[in-house]
Amino acid sequence: MKPADAPKDGAGMAAETERMIERDGAKEPESAASGGETRKEMRVVLLTGFGGLNKLRVAKKAMPEPQEGEVKIRVKACGLNFLDLMVRQGNIDNPPKTPLVPGFECSGIVEAMGENTQGFEIGDRVMAFVNYSAWAEVVCTPLDFVYKIPDDMTFIEAAAFSMNFVAAYMMLFEVAALREGMSVLVHSAGGGVGQAVAQLCSTVSNVTVFGTASPFKHEAIKDSVTHLFDRNIDYVPEVKKISPEGVDIVLDCLCGENTGKGLGLLKPLGTYILYGSSNMVTGETKSFFSFAKSWWQVEKVNPIKLYEENKVMAGFSLLNLLFKQGGCKPVRSAVEKLFSLYNQKKIKPLVDSLWALEEVKEAMQRIHDRGNIGKLILDVEKPPTPLMANDSTETSEAGEDEEEHEGDSDNKERMPFIQ
Amino acid sequence: MKPADAPKDGAGMAAETERMIERDGAKEPESAASGGETRKEMRVVLLTGFGGLNKLRVAKKAMPEPQEGEVKIRVKACGLNFLDLMVRQGNIDNPPKTPLVPGFECSGIVEAMGENTQGFEIGDRVMAFVNYSAWAEVVCTPLDFVYKIPDDMTFIEAAAFSMNFVAAYMMLFEVAALREGMSVLVHSAGGGVGQAVAQLCSTVSNVTVFGTASPFKHEAIKDSVTHLFDRNIDYVPEVKKISPEGVDIVLDCLCGENTGKGLGLLKPLGTYILYGSSNMVTGETKSFFSFAKSWWQVEKVNPIKLYEENKVMAGFSLLNLLFKQGGCKPVRSAVEKLFSLYNQKKIKPLVDSLWALEEVKEAMQRIHDRGNIGKLILDVEKPPTPLMANDSTETSEAGEDEEEHEGDSDNKERMPFIQ
Repeated sequence: MKPADAPKDGAGMAAETERMIERDGAKEPESAASGGETRKEMRVVLLTGFGGLNKLRVAKKAMPEPQEGEVKIRVKACGLNFLDLMVRQGNIDNPPKTPLVPGFECSGIVEAMGENTQGFEIGDRVMAFVNYSAWAEVVCTPLDFVYKIPDDMTFIEAAAFSMNFVAAYMMLFEVAALREGMSVLVHSAGGGVGQAVAQLCSTVSNVTVFGTASPFKHEAIKDSVTHLFDRNIDYVPEVKKISPEGVDIVLDCLCGENTGKGLGLLKPLGTYILYGSSNMVTGETKSFFSFAKSWWQVEKVNPIKLYEENKVMAGFSLLNLLFKQGGCKPVRSAVEKLFSLYNQKKIKPLVDSLWALEEVKEAMQRIHDRGNIGKLILDVEKPPTPLMANDSTETSEAGEDEEEHEGDSDNKERMPFIQ
Repeated sequence: MKPADAPKDGAGMAAETERMIERDGAKEPESAASGGETRKEMRVVLLTGFGGLNKLRVAKKAMPEPQEGEVKIRVKACGLNFLDLMVRQGNIDNPPKTPLVPGFECSGIVEAMGENTQGFEIGDRVMAFVNYSAWAEVVCTPLDFVYKIPDDMTFIEAAAFSMNFVAAYMMLFEVAALREGMSVLVHSAGGGVGQAVAQLCSTVSNVTVFGTASPFKHEAIKDSVTHLFDRNIDYVPEVKKISPEGVDIVLDCLCGENTGKGLGLLKPLGTYILYGSSNMVTGETKSFFSFAKSWWQVEKVNPIKLYEENKVMAGFSLLNLLFKQGGCKPVRSAVEKLFSLYNQKKIKPLVDSLWALEEVKEAMQRIHDRGNIGKLILDVEKPPTPLMANDSTETSEAGEDEEEHEGDSDNKERMPFIQ
């Protein structure tokens, strides 16, 4: 496995990126509200409306100050997830209002604290979950969502760690009960969660991991997964060839027809967990397969079928657990166990690439194209990288352009990807 | 809790029971097939066809001999479950052909073994699962389904133990992961599984048990359940009054609308388990709410809903696990843990009443009327009891008679219940 401290630099940078960095204050009610006093500003990634990549820009915003129970963090690195792409498209249930600053996780240094924030001190190295607004130079978030990181853990690692490893851990050990000798099927085995799942499975003896991934990733991740399948073929007969009785745990981030396939592949007493719905994303903008449509198109399951087959069907959304359902206690418990595994050098986040805030479009395109192996990180202190010619073979979003032109008058602002 | 070794005798016995004991050989192809040789016979409970109580009688049948891998058991006691009532009605998926001998669990003494039955000896005291045919003086079943019982465990207790405690244990600790401080909702808290669930919950510290039961059972079971509700009222607002955030585990044997209610009552990361469908049973015979209909009437669940709400939906069928899905290994592991808890005197089956084979109709009526508190046992060596006047207040099946008369020409054989 590629060490996390030697990630490759963010690739595919357009030269005109710098002009993206604009003062966005006039358009932003939040920063305009401060009246006459001189307020500190910070750089953020701003999503001006739901849609394509052109809705993203780097802007200046008034710096937040911590409220009671909040910790103010000088951000060093932020995680970029497939979910951020769905947010950009507005392809989520009850999307918030735009403009907004995306991002759900970051790492950094505690810079200030509000009242009642016992346990934290200025200078603490932390990772944090944020209910949006993580992609900024400064973040304020309640202390329930902030965790001091191990001394050996880099900020890059911490930003790569939070969502993916916590989700993987809680699914494998809290929702399911991964034990010696079990088998696990995970889709997008080369992605952030997929690699976290693979590493966590390796902490239990004799666990078989079946994974699907694009063929070009197989060489890079083959040591972390027992059996790798091309994501473009039907994995069901392939798994059955190797394990006719099925698998114990299926982790599904694809949804749709994969629910039926996943349930069908389970052994008795096995657990299927839906933790995402990335198949809902097709083009660059919200498509025919929007969230509302997908809800109805997904195969519903009769509990009597689960009864007859002795099967378990579960769903897991870390963000809902944290921000809607008051689940910070079980999450903290998972984080503590994960830090212990990290300190024992049993797990280590795999980082795909680092990107400047100004490179967020390229980073998003990379995750859209499923080009990443491991986690994409926004490195807040990183300057934008010049265009690298050797990345020009990556899939471009040709075919999406037309849709963009038709539906989006802001297209002139769009930063082309690898011209 | 009432001690299991002082159960009350089977009540409500009709005087003409003895004439039920008839030689059924001429009607039975199995026993007629033996040709000229003199074969040993045994008493069994025979279900002559699917339908009402009149389809049950005690008959003689050729005694089975153990095949390779099978253990022959001289039966002392058999368990009677709600499922047996559904079998009698033919109210199950893919019902077997009649005539058949019902019953899925028994206890007794090993009398003979087939080839390859290492680990067992003649004289061993055992409990066993049987894929039908348990309600007989002798049973042969593969050794995978046979367990030596602790020295202190009576045969009555063992027959009361197998299905109920194994199901309760596997649901609480294998499908869900019951831990300190959790809460559990169980329906039919006075029944065999309900009482097993309550006892197993008491082995974990600080577990809150919510139970529903008929009001007349409340006094008897109040010490085993933290919060008891009348089964005739809506338990959802009652539970929410006490625990607004919901419960961690819901065990549902009712199905139908209770699936939605149960899922709705779950805390985030909570588990709903369907383990039966007793609401499908209404009258004495298979009704409008037959199995096939119920399948479609049960509310199907969208996995995206589970994802958004962080919930787990599971089904558990011990018999399917054992006899259709090769799950004898996890079941044996559960049995071993349960025997250890029994030996530590942490659990003890609660027996409602003992019944002679000839009293099977009364026993079934009692479970149909939900009159039992704990487990009903067929005590193979027990002679039928004379009618007891003080039981004449129990619910009779008046109202079902008419249906029977219309549809069933065998009605003359029907043994009336408490005339």
